[in-house]
Amino acid sequence: MKRDHIKELLTLKEEKEAFICGWIRTNRAQAQFGFLNVNDGSTLQNIQVVYDNKLANFLEVSKFRTGVSVSILGKVVLTPNNKQPLEIHASEITMLGDCGEDYPIQPKRHTREFLREYAHLRPRTNLFNAVFRIRSVAAMAVHTYFQSRGYLYVHTPLITCADCEGSDQMFKITTLDMNHLPLDENKHVDFSKDLFGKQAWITGSGQLQGETFAMAFADIYTFGPTFRTENSNTQTHANEFWMIEPEMAFCDLEGLMDIEEEMLKFVIKYVLDNAKAEIEFCDQFVEKGLISKLEAILNSKFVRISHHDVVDILKKAPVKWEFAPTYEDDISKEHERYITEYFNGPVFITNWPKEIKAWYMKVNDDNKTVAAVDLVVPHAGELMGGSQREENLDKLLERMKELNVSKDGIDWYLDTRRYGGCVHSGFGMGFERLIMYLTGVENIRDVIPFPRTPKNCEY
Amino acid sequence: MKRDHIKELLTLKEEKEAFICGWIRTNRAQAQFGFLNVNDGSTLQNIQVVYDNKLANFLEVSKFRTGVSVSILGKVVLTPNNKQPLEIHASEITMLGDCGEDYPIQPKRHTREFLREYAHLRPRTNLFNAVFRIRSVAAMAVHTYFQSRGYLYVHTPLITCADCEGSDQMFKITTLDMNHLPLDENKHVDFSKDLFGKQAWITGSGQLQGETFAMAFADIYTFGPTFRTENSNTQTHANEFWMIEPEMAFCDLEGLMDIEEEMLKFVIKYVLDNAKAEIEFCDQFVEKGLISKLEAILNSKFVRISHHDVVDILKKAPVKWEFAPTYEDDISKEHERYITEYFNGPVFITNWPKEIKAWYMKVNDDNKTVAAVDLVVPHAGELMGGSQREENLDKLLERMKELNVSKDGIDWYLDTRRYGGCVHSGFGMGFERLIMYLTGVENIRDVIPFPRTPKNCEY
Repeated sequence: MKRDHIKELLTLKEEKEAFICGWIRTNRAQAQFGFLNVNDGSTLQNIQVVYDNKLANFLEVSKFRTGVSVSILGKVVLTPNNKQPLEIHASEITMLGDCGEDYPIQPKRHTREFLREYAHLRPRTNLFNAVFRIRSVAAMAVHTYFQSRGYLYVHTPLITCADCEGSDQMFKITTLDMNHLPLDENKHVDFSKDLFGKQAWITGSGQLQGETFAMAFADIYTFGPTFRTENSNTQTHANEFWMIEPEMAFCDLEGLMDIEEEMLKFVIKYVLDNAKAEIEFCDQFVEKGLISKLEAILNSKFVRISHHDVVDILKKAPVKWEFAPTYEDDISKEHERYITEYFNGPVFITNWPKEIKAWYMKVNDDNKTVAAVDLVVPHAGELMGGSQREENLDKLLERMKELNVSKDGIDWYLDTRRYGGCVHSGFGMGFERLIMYLTGVENIRDVIPFPRTPKNCEY
Repeated sequence: MKRDHIKELLTLKEEKEAFICGWIRTNRAQAQFGFLNVNDGSTLQNIQVVYDNKLANFLEVSKFRTGVSVSILGKVVLTPNNKQPLEIHASEITMLGDCGEDYPIQPKRHTREFLREYAHLRPRTNLFNAVFRIRSVAAMAVHTYFQSRGYLYVHTPLITCADCEGSDQMFKITTLDMNHLPLDENKHVDFSKDLFGKQAWITGSGQLQGETFAMAFADIYTFGPTFRTENSNTQTHANEFWMIEPEMAFCDLEGLMDIEEEMLKFVIKYVLDNAKAEIEFCDQFVEKGLISKLEAILNSKFVRISHHDVVDILKKAPVKWEFAPTYEDDISKEHERYITEYFNGPVFITNWPKEIKAWYMKVNDDNKTVAAVDLVVPHAGELMGGSQREENLDKLLERMKELNVSKDGIDWYLDTRRYGGCVHSGFGMGFERLIMYLTGVENIRDVIPFPRTPKNCEY
């Protein structure tokens, strides 16, 4: 028999026979009858199931523990005067799988730290059920935004032999026996014996390959896992996370900001529409005012202001800064917070000092700044970072020389400037950062199904 | 000025002013006028642009080479009596980026082997433009199928410290300096000094973690990159590829086949509808009859037959086999080919001998076979592989013991059987295999943007 999804049953306006499968969240049994709260994962919301001693197995059912999986046949009955709009009157309840008494996920409050020790069971709690549903819906929102606008989704490679990104930030990969590494005549590891015939890494970005595809499809995006070796135990760092990297030909810095703003609003709207119960849960239990915060973004026009002018505002601010703002340096978390409060909304900070930004960014005519942009949002700081790319080959080569970026292994990338190059721009968005923003959850470990952080690689 | 997409212009039914940006595919210049074929990546199809000596820069334009990027202002003029239904009469043509004379992608036939040496430029050819558009559209089809049915998209981790899959098939990853590895007292590598405090790999499957999420959300899927160290240079092997792994609670083998069949038909239909020009190109230039092949799948009812009965048919077949079919062994490519021709359509082969299948599969009552299923399709062989999982903890532990699968590091997985387990099933589909099937392209290197194979890790 095909099972009904609780998410659909909860929208019923008339009574009907239903068949559900799910897991018992609570069981309140009395002498003659009882109530089950059942969740089937289709929505955060449970359905209430009423059963009584007309069931042949009433005594057994009344002892079913939290976590037991069951199938239930019964009638959906509208109960407009009760707390929940409907319930199921069960005619048959069958245990599908028992649940041990030592089940760690009991119907009580567990700390997030405790639940991190049970990453394989925590999706069965309300919080993680909500967070991972929002994560899934947000991923679909990203794909829908780009695909409906004709962007090409490109799977850039993760394995790379070009260490232009700074190989110290990348994981090395090998098929060699690490206890018996082959050595060359200089007693160095002989990577010619490795699978790819040379040293290989797992990359932290698909941007360069993405740019080559933008020179064929104009509008492309990547969306995949990314790796950093950073040995950093903070609330916002993980060694494996997902990233979105769109790249657009014929698009300058202003066009880039248009797209970033439109995309963020689209994703927020999509999640509010398609994960309503889950967002409401987060609004109630994770970040009070979450929905207002997100709706405010939808209705705002993002400010666009240069790094220079931001520093002017910071310098004039009646604030004693921990880090004094300067025209040459990055801005700190406290500055980001002040500037989003100052404008009471998201702020695009543009035209950064070239010394603190990457080699492929377009140098502005002042020869001091680059056409880069960071989007900072209230409560979360930086959400996206992007730039117009230097499309002029000579200028790009000059910058590479200045910054000691080797041409070895990326000459193919320079072909994008040799053969029909054009103004183009792109940005990167850390997907977890977005999910933290959408849910109000403050620790990146709580928005990744099985987080990987230093000294922590379980499951 | 916002650029128009050629894909949309080509559907125009009335004339209008247009502004496009794109790349010149060909330029046929005569004394007084000329024709450009321009592609902007929004579709495989080019638009024809007519220009004449009223342009101030007519002489320069007439010398623009293949590959040059241009912006063009002009009027879309309907030409119902010509080969193409419309063309642009240019009033302004501007070079955005020149293209060297040595541009490798000239308007002539290049072999696929040649183009593999230019993976960063080959998306600018018709073939790869079509293939990678189909790949992108097919990825969206997969997400749309699952999300519209309430499945949760889960990002299972790629980094793992559990080597239950057979660590010899996985890449090792490390942050240690491989030329100066720290050693422990036994002169083995001291992985306690590595980032995760122990040895780590890049995994080849998210199934086990996926199962834990299926026990919370019922219906889930993964879609992400996957890695194998196989040192194999064939048309169908790559060391990095993408895989889809759905997992459904409350779903048995029959239910699994229903989903596989429905999903495949959905994806084919979606691609036929949303990548029409690209599929037509493949039908004409890659695999004659491709569209008929795909439409036949849509209209077929997939056969369901046991491995035992397949072997019966093979044994009776009037064929001299290279590999004699037996009830105990896997079936070979020649057998797959015969059986799909025999039934003239896709075939689900079920209930395989347990000795040749994985430890987590449900052992049938005969204690000889497992509830596994492979889907084989005409012309392509195996497209999906899946099984009902052994949900009974004791039986699962027994199988693990028989097959020497260590419990170390996967006790968390066994919790899915301890706490509210249930009948559940899942399958894996190699995404590249699907794209090869959808395009008719026969070498996996030609459906991956930047393929990684032994001794081959460029870009």
